[in-house]
Amino acid sequence: MAALDQVCGRARQLGMACAVIHSSNHLGMLAWYVESIARAGQIGIATTISEALVHPWGGRLAMQGTNPLAIGIPATPDPLVLDMSTGLISMGKVHDYALRGRPLEPGWALDASGEPTTSADAAKAGSIAPFGGAKGYALGLALEVLVGSLTPSALGTAVRGTLDSAHPCNKGDVFIVLQPAAPDRVSPVSDYLGQVRQTPTSPSDAPVSVPGDGARRRREQALRQGIDVADPVWAQLRATAQTSQPDR
Amino acid sequence: MAALDQVCGRARQLGMACAVIHSSNHLGMLAWYVESIARAGQIGIATTISEALVHPWGGRLAMQGTNPLAIGIPATPDPLVLDMSTGLISMGKVHDYALRGRPLEPGWALDASGEPTTSADAAKAGSIAPFGGAKGYALGLALEVLVGSLTPSALGTAVRGTLDSAHPCNKGDVFIVLQPAAPDRVSPVSDYLGQVRQTPTSPSDAPVSVPGDGARRRREQALRQGIDVADPVWAQLRATAQTSQPDR
Repeated sequence: MAALDQVCGRARQLGMACAVIHSSNHLGMLAWYVESIARAGQIGIATTISEALVHPWGGRLAMQGTNPLAIGIPATPDPLVLDMSTGLISMGKVHDYALRGRPLEPGWALDASGEPTTSADAAKAGSIAPFGGAKGYALGLALEVLVGSLTPSALGTAVRGTLDSAHPCNKGDVFIVLQPAAPDRVSPVSDYLGQVRQTPTSPSDAPVSVPGDGARRRREQALRQGIDVADPVWAQLRATAQTSQPDR
Repeated sequence: MAALDQVCGRARQLGMACAVIHSSNHLGMLAWYVESIARAGQIGIATTISEALVHPWGGRLAMQGTNPLAIGIPATPDPLVLDMSTGLISMGKVHDYALRGRPLEPGWALDASGEPTTSADAAKAGSIAPFGGAKGYALGLALEVLVGSLTPSALGTAVRGTLDSAHPCNKGDVFIVLQPAAPDRVSPVSDYLGQVRQTPTSPSDAPVSVPGDGARRRREQALRQGIDVADPVWAQLRATAQTSQPDR
């Protein structure tokens, strides 16, 4: 949070600012940061990297992280909040499917030897496909190299510590904050987002969402109805709760 | 070029700088700009928008441009140069297929009434799919809103003038230039890109490329062997050449 406060303050003074961070731990989700920046009237662009989990387009081994890109932009009634992994799915989803005994869909993952697999257990030792084919691969790689050019981050298969608590985390994060030159752009941008939500759809389809809408709906639903946790995870949580002593 | 020179100079002095442009004409391709920035030792991030040509994920009408994102990052022997449209294909490709009488692939486009089509002629009056499904749609929309928040750009269906010479162009462009804090990052980044190019592939597959490799290969080939132009375009070019007077 200290870096975020500083970079937002400097962008207010100077028009733009960038925070580069390294050797920090897992930062949770980028949406939280860029949404808070956008709700304060600034534009936030953020990216980070992870252990190599995604295979290059045409390659058989994981060489880059699930490298998410997040963009938060002021709008009414709610900001646009993009937060997308450049992997087709998350490794968390692979683990969730493995715990629930569900098969992956074809094309989602390769096994440890680089062969396509629908076994979530085999994919845990293998690699995830990039989203969007060659373009998503290229975007994810560009984000890895952007982080690696601005911070002394480890890269590719040398990245450690976002998925376990055994290795010190050696990856980098990049936050760019821009001060919109003209606050009067919030109104035309919000009108445009409203038009996009009203795009005609097939009668059987849901209305069009803009980035952030779905996460807001799921958050509101979770606050009302709770969160669905896989049974083995719930059992682990209960076991941990019974054996652990609170820190304070 | 004036804006590019200024923004690169300021980034050298200040660490980063941003140029926002509006009501300029079609800027050609973003790769040219970010590659020149990267070859000068800086990091370039650029985006622009176009007439509404791409339909939202789940929507039936074009509401956003083919909004490309480009990132250029110094590396040896050549910089990483990403330049990707957020449309699954370009409208130029649709016109090229129409001229050659070739059908589009399923999933590429909708016709004017929002129904899927493989007719390139029908797609010219319709819309192109976003690349990468919901994520590519969300990225393209975020780029449209980013441009619209930093410049007095028209948005969505109000954008005019990048595809014709009849309307004044009313869209915006955004260029961000970052000065790498540590030039010694070029070496580890270049090593990493070399590792990615060496990723094992299936025996029948081409080696893995990193962003920029393919365009460099195609440029070298075109310089040796020429450029393949559709026959109707070539006929138009010859007819124009015979009827036009040179400006000077």
